[in-house]
Amino acid sequence: MLKIDGIAASAGVAIAAAFKLEHPDYTVKRQNGDDPAAELARLEEALATSQRELEAIKERTLQELGEKKAEIFESHLLILNDPELLTPVRDKITAEKVSAEYALDETSKQFISMFENMKSAYLRERAADMRDVTKRVLTHLLGLSYVNPAEISEEVIVIAEDLTPSDTAQLNRKYVKGFTTNIGGRTSHSAIMARSLEIPAVVGTKDVLAQVNSGDMIIVDGLDGVVIVNPAPEVLEEYKTKRDNHLRQIEEWKKLREIPTVSEDGVHVELAANIGTPNDVTGVLENGGEGVGLYRTEFLYMGRSELPSEEVQFNAYKTVLEKMEGKPVVVRTLDIGGDKELPYLDLPKEMNPFLGFRAVRLCLERTDIFRTQLRALLRASTYGNLRIMFPMIATLDEFRQAKVLLLEEKEKLVSEGIAVSGSIQLGIMVEIPSTAVLADQFAKEVDFFSIGTNDLIQYTMAADRMNERVSYLYQPYNPAILRLVKMVIDAAHKEGRWAGMCGEMAGDATAIPLLLGLGLDEFSMSATSILPARSQISKLSKAEMKDLADLALQKQTAEEVVQLVRGIGH
Amino acid sequence: MLKIDGIAASAGVAIAAAFKLEHPDYTVKRQNGDDPAAELARLEEALATSQRELEAIKERTLQELGEKKAEIFESHLLILNDPELLTPVRDKITAEKVSAEYALDETSKQFISMFENMKSAYLRERAADMRDVTKRVLTHLLGLSYVNPAEISEEVIVIAEDLTPSDTAQLNRKYVKGFTTNIGGRTSHSAIMARSLEIPAVVGTKDVLAQVNSGDMIIVDGLDGVVIVNPAPEVLEEYKTKRDNHLRQIEEWKKLREIPTVSEDGVHVELAANIGTPNDVTGVLENGGEGVGLYRTEFLYMGRSELPSEEVQFNAYKTVLEKMEGKPVVVRTLDIGGDKELPYLDLPKEMNPFLGFRAVRLCLERTDIFRTQLRALLRASTYGNLRIMFPMIATLDEFRQAKVLLLEEKEKLVSEGIAVSGSIQLGIMVEIPSTAVLADQFAKEVDFFSIGTNDLIQYTMAADRMNERVSYLYQPYNPAILRLVKMVIDAAHKEGRWAGMCGEMAGDATAIPLLLGLGLDEFSMSATSILPARSQISKLSKAEMKDLADLALQKQTAEEVVQLVRGIGH
Repeated sequence: MLKIDGIAASAGVAIAAAFKLEHPDYTVKRQNGDDPAAELARLEEALATSQRELEAIKERTLQELGEKKAEIFESHLLILNDPELLTPVRDKITAEKVSAEYALDETSKQFISMFENMKSAYLRERAADMRDVTKRVLTHLLGLSYVNPAEISEEVIVIAEDLTPSDTAQLNRKYVKGFTTNIGGRTSHSAIMARSLEIPAVVGTKDVLAQVNSGDMIIVDGLDGVVIVNPAPEVLEEYKTKRDNHLRQIEEWKKLREIPTVSEDGVHVELAANIGTPNDVTGVLENGGEGVGLYRTEFLYMGRSELPSEEVQFNAYKTVLEKMEGKPVVVRTLDIGGDKELPYLDLPKEMNPFLGFRAVRLCLERTDIFRTQLRALLRASTYGNLRIMFPMIATLDEFRQAKVLLLEEKEKLVSEGIAVSGSIQLGIMVEIPSTAVLADQFAKEVDFFSIGTNDLIQYTMAADRMNERVSYLYQPYNPAILRLVKMVIDAAHKEGRWAGMCGEMAGDATAIPLLLGLGLDEFSMSATSILPARSQISKLSKAEMKDLADLALQKQTAEEVVQLVRGIGH
Repeated sequence: MLKIDGIAASAGVAIAAAFKLEHPDYTVKRQNGDDPAAELARLEEALATSQRELEAIKERTLQELGEKKAEIFESHLLILNDPELLTPVRDKITAEKVSAEYALDETSKQFISMFENMKSAYLRERAADMRDVTKRVLTHLLGLSYVNPAEISEEVIVIAEDLTPSDTAQLNRKYVKGFTTNIGGRTSHSAIMARSLEIPAVVGTKDVLAQVNSGDMIIVDGLDGVVIVNPAPEVLEEYKTKRDNHLRQIEEWKKLREIPTVSEDGVHVELAANIGTPNDVTGVLENGGEGVGLYRTEFLYMGRSELPSEEVQFNAYKTVLEKMEGKPVVVRTLDIGGDKELPYLDLPKEMNPFLGFRAVRLCLERTDIFRTQLRALLRASTYGNLRIMFPMIATLDEFRQAKVLLLEEKEKLVSEGIAVSGSIQLGIMVEIPSTAVLADQFAKEVDFFSIGTNDLIQYTMAADRMNERVSYLYQPYNPAILRLVKMVIDAAHKEGRWAGMCGEMAGDATAIPLLLGLGLDEFSMSATSILPARSQISKLSKAEMKDLADLALQKQTAEEVVQLVRGIGH
């Protein structure tokens, strides 16, 4: 039995056999095939095997995950049978007398490079499909063994160095009971994906991949960030109980879906959800969200070859507002730049993109882009309870400039006879230290604050949250962070405004008692965290948590704060 | 007459003819020379001209700037006559029938690439010399016109896109009366260099280079950040008066050299200097520095091929301490990483180096490097008044860890019978927002704070100070910055500690009234700023400045703060 510590990335306990997801080496060297006929035969056999596999996967995916997810394999089948690809491969084998794998690899590389240089985002995505199909055929030609995560057909726990977006897109919850990775943190892509799929995960174990063999019995404890390999029988029993208790807990939480969030001493706070697309609203409502606290509009701008039109945006905003049926929806205006690029915008490479030209900084220069978004939002405003929020505000000047643009667009719409809601709240993300420190001045001019802890923490600690070497400094519980949060909340209340939070911290069980005590009005989090948070808050007294927060503010280190909170036995 | 606004980078007024410093295009295409004998003759002629030029420059540099500065041209002459370079060039002309410029360019490129890949830093520097010499000869072969800044022999104002370190190293104060550049800010290399050379400079004009012709009469007003091209006679007179007043002012300031810094109402503050090498101490004493507020030890680690030994460091620290004769010397431990790399350390490339693995973060992992520096400092401590300061401290844990290493090394030295001072103050840079916010807790454990505004501002505003696109957010006078500075000073005083500042802001005439009012104890700045600052403070009442600072803390924007300070007519 071996115990490995990692970072608890997604709650729950999973117990199953290990499945190591490792990408084999597909390097192909030039190799002459003296017998072109034999090489052609090898190629056809590999193609036929791949065809059978793909048909089976497509069928299974269709059954288990639905039409949308199965589409990708339909595309793969089309590529596998495309004469535009296969004719040059066969010609190459005959004319140059090279091996089948070399002919396929070379030809496919040319296509991939061609696709990657296409202007159209749609065609650029074909490069990834071409790469996947080529790998599948090469697996057979090279005698490699590789199982695509989508092909897993028994209950397993996936063990990997890291999971890429394309890996996670193909995970099937029916079989993948949990996963654990060598790298990553609570805010890395794979961790966020695990919470969205609601499967237990432990990330950042450093070397789980080397410590485990495929087939080993594995426990992934996503509650406490522990992985156990080949557990002793009594340990296995203990974790089965823990898993069952957690599942029972989840059933309990579901009962809280329709009730408001009220502390033990009767104070109501709002639990809202962070969303990225209109499709996410279903999950918000299923999990009892009282609003959308952060609608990240970046996704509207991604995966396309040009800026989204006003109409495309209007429809998206309208859909979200309508589906939320009058519950508040906080829409964050475009937050692009930094680590998020748009190929068609051609932004300059920066030395420190997190400290660079992004979000509202870019929107105040590219007012054409900004005005289009503001118009779309204003037009959608009559379909629900819209709140508009500007990201990365560092100075009052920036807020005022952005507000002027909004008012100008509003006036234009009104003069065009288009209806605009008269009660749109206008707020800012507080994610830059200067804005937290000066919150009392901002509170005189904004309708609300939403504290973006992911960025606020990285700037306050001067530590890139994506950089493993300084991840120890990404400290949500550092008393300095709590003090900044307090400044923002107190400033809002003094002017009769409300203060919310939309970073990862808002849904964190250790932070919630402190945030409740500091007086936070709105907590916006992953939809799946809402019910546990509601349950937790219902058992906490806000008055007592205020005392707890006061103590925390006087602590010296994050560690001391955590010990203090754990002391109340949450 | 044309007036161009820029950033005041170095005080004073310069009036002279414009000299445009533009690097010509040295691109050489392969070109056959049908007549090798003629090409050889062209080569010899270009070499001879270059030889005459270099001898003249060397002689003049020797006369005017001294032996040290002339050495570089001696090296150039050696290269110009080196058969190891010239034989292959001549062979190439004869054997391949190519033009002289092509043969020289190709051969020189090979040497440069070879030098650049050498392990020895000394040999790597030869690459730059080889490049300079090649350019000089190519200038003649290609019929280009280019004057090296070192060759300027009449009074001019240099106009350039930007000045590189190698450009500025060759500026001769006797002839270069001032300069102005298109790009750069107050903290860019060229601005710092101008202040150190004590010549007026205006940077960041955006397009001065395009607006000026060589020979135009130019005024560079480094007091107010203005450049005037072809001034009208009355404007010229006005600026001559301004220049003379400034020069008279400087003479006045010199009288303050030996007196302490005391405000109008009798409060003493300490004016110290920032230095990079033991050589800088002379300038500190000449300018009446009351101490060294920041000794940047990075230079000891740069320009060499391996880590500096304990002995090398000990000697440097000892020299500074001895020269300062008991005046306090604050030595900052190694602040490497971020934008400062050491080739022999092989640090990983980071996405956001300013938010990365640098300074004390690196030292706490590479304790071997850190312990060597601490030992050298402890051994030197008996030669003067040493204070040790850790950079980039974000948490109390980091300070405690660093302190433990220091105490361990101290104990070892004592047990080895080596003397160590018993009164070394131990402090931290406050340059990360978390540390400013939690200064009250830090003040219980450190002996002093030194506020590093260059970094503190960029983290607090989340704006890379080297990134032109967000430079409008680098706001020293933002009320949020002033509030953080106040937190740090108040926290220090509450525990009986002192608080200093060693960023650019400490020597800034607009900031000084506010900093005095906020209670700053020590101001550390460029040596050349000390006397003007002393003069300014002697005319300010600290009590009145406290009221001014209180008003500034309640302002909404940096602009309002500047207007407030300007209102007192400093």
